[in-house]
Amino acid sequence: MTATKPTRVVLYGAGLMGSIIIRYLVEKGFELVGVIDNNPDLVGKDAGQVGGLGRDLGLTVSADADEVLSREADIAVLTLLSLMSDMEPFFARCARHGVNAISTCEEAFYPRTTSPEITDRLDALAKEHGVTLTGSGYQDVYWGNLATVIAGSTQRIDAMEGVSSYNVDDYGIALAKVHGVGMIPDEFQREIADANVPSFAMNVPGWIASQLGLHMTGITQVLMPRYSDHPVKSTTLGRDIEPGQALGMAARATATTEEGIDIVMEVRGVVYEPGDVDLNDWVIRGEPTTAVSVDKPNTVELTCGTIVNRIPQVIAAPAGFTTLESLPPAKYLLPAK
Amino acid sequence: MTATKPTRVVLYGAGLMGSIIIRYLVEKGFELVGVIDNNPDLVGKDAGQVGGLGRDLGLTVSADADEVLSREADIAVLTLLSLMSDMEPFFARCARHGVNAISTCEEAFYPRTTSPEITDRLDALAKEHGVTLTGSGYQDVYWGNLATVIAGSTQRIDAMEGVSSYNVDDYGIALAKVHGVGMIPDEFQREIADANVPSFAMNVPGWIASQLGLHMTGITQVLMPRYSDHPVKSTTLGRDIEPGQALGMAARATATTEEGIDIVMEVRGVVYEPGDVDLNDWVIRGEPTTAVSVDKPNTVELTCGTIVNRIPQVIAAPAGFTTLESLPPAKYLLPAK
Repeated sequence: MTATKPTRVVLYGAGLMGSIIIRYLVEKGFELVGVIDNNPDLVGKDAGQVGGLGRDLGLTVSADADEVLSREADIAVLTLLSLMSDMEPFFARCARHGVNAISTCEEAFYPRTTSPEITDRLDALAKEHGVTLTGSGYQDVYWGNLATVIAGSTQRIDAMEGVSSYNVDDYGIALAKVHGVGMIPDEFQREIADANVPSFAMNVPGWIASQLGLHMTGITQVLMPRYSDHPVKSTTLGRDIEPGQALGMAARATATTEEGIDIVMEVRGVVYEPGDVDLNDWVIRGEPTTAVSVDKPNTVELTCGTIVNRIPQVIAAPAGFTTLESLPPAKYLLPAK
Repeated sequence: MTATKPTRVVLYGAGLMGSIIIRYLVEKGFELVGVIDNNPDLVGKDAGQVGGLGRDLGLTVSADADEVLSREADIAVLTLLSLMSDMEPFFARCARHGVNAISTCEEAFYPRTTSPEITDRLDALAKEHGVTLTGSGYQDVYWGNLATVIAGSTQRIDAMEGVSSYNVDDYGIALAKVHGVGMIPDEFQREIADANVPSFAMNVPGWIASQLGLHMTGITQVLMPRYSDHPVKSTTLGRDIEPGQALGMAARATATTEEGIDIVMEVRGVVYEPGDVDLNDWVIRGEPTTAVSVDKPNTVELTCGTIVNRIPQVIAAPAGFTTLESLPPAKYLLPAK
């Protein structure tokens, strides 16, 4: 009897999400062969300690990405940044090393709508090197297949309307930045609104339209900053958000399609105050109209869980920048015995 | 340019569900080539009128099943009865005519747990004739893929617990009968409880376990009749249900698996009183625990919608009694232009 060779995984980014993913990978029997991070507080530490396993794994965090990516990993998990413009060099580096990559980068969920040139470049590079690059996480299930599974039971769809909220403080500094956290109105206007930074909501209609075979004719976004009138503590910023500074924002993307189905996604990312909880609701309007609601989803754990469950499908997927609406839904992987 | 040949469909059973399915099929561009029913009130009527289209389709309801099934249909939609023991001859007739079949029969959703011999016989017959036989409907999405999509975002599952309720009065006499509607306690005990009629809940754990690759080690059901203390009008029975007679029942199936994941499904089917609404909730317990809830699902329309959306996948599926956890989720079909 031959033992199955475990899948070799590199983790690229050992921050808030990465540290959870270390534990999830170990629990599910993946072989963690490298952890990359350039944070001096992490470099040289054992990955088992970073992952809160309470034991060493005999593998230390390294800042030398090229060396770690040369360890013949099957896939790299990228928990780094939220925008494709920031992620392109990291995806490209994995591709050049012949390593598949799955990222929590929210825009990578379906980047063709918001960053088509970057996606095309990465797609060509991935095909050249025979690897799959993709994005996944909470959005893959709760902004994607949860809605399309309901669609599959519907006779006629007029509109699909999603709303989701999460605590910006749970996701690290990169995400806080693109939500304008701590900015005064002038800064928010200049750095977020005028810069027309694509919100995470903008990637949802394209993903859904692609899976359902719909053709988008247009998409617009509205960004709605939320300001505090009293100091609110932010662990990510390491300070209070003062009155008049943004706690984050709600972003609503509205897409129209040739087929007459509107797809609307509103994503609310703010630093929570006591009593705020995550929510995730969809209404599929038509015959019949169906509303589905997730009660206080743990978006952080669900992001990490989805990423890890997706690994075997991504390794098996066609080469290219392959978005996951084109595959069956993420499938639960059993923990290792 | 060649026009795509429309898919030819026979409807077998033109009752409550069948009449909706006539309209759904026409709206989605399927070619309805026959409607079978032996109800003398329906035989000879135009299918367009039975389907509430307000116009004739030039196709009349016929009681001659063998003749209608000889019209070279691609698939038959069977909206007849709820148990495999009742459905076997209908499935077999379709197979012998070389016609694929999809049924609203609730047990057909995953009949291997409750009727393995019948399923094996039909599986062999279907393979002999190169056709696919299956069951689908509301359960396919709301008792199946809704739960497994959530599972795909979860790191560790301890238990999956579903509860669903529907109005027995919406589904016709066959379904009312297996819920004990109108029975006094002695009758319920003898005809439902002692007969150990498999409840619809019994078919859910097997479907989920199969899709997730889990191995069931046992399954039990508890049937809990609900009695009224005042008269409740039942349109299906055409009379009041008197105090002391059953309005229906709740059935809870509990399955254990080798992998340590419990799968529990409770199905509440009663004649509704004013204020009662359908519900459909799942809790996936583990890391993390996630609860999802469907608000007042229109179970009748969702059953018909799922059946019609599933048709292309079923025609393309492997021959045999092929349960649908083995295929991707039902996919929304666009209405015809």
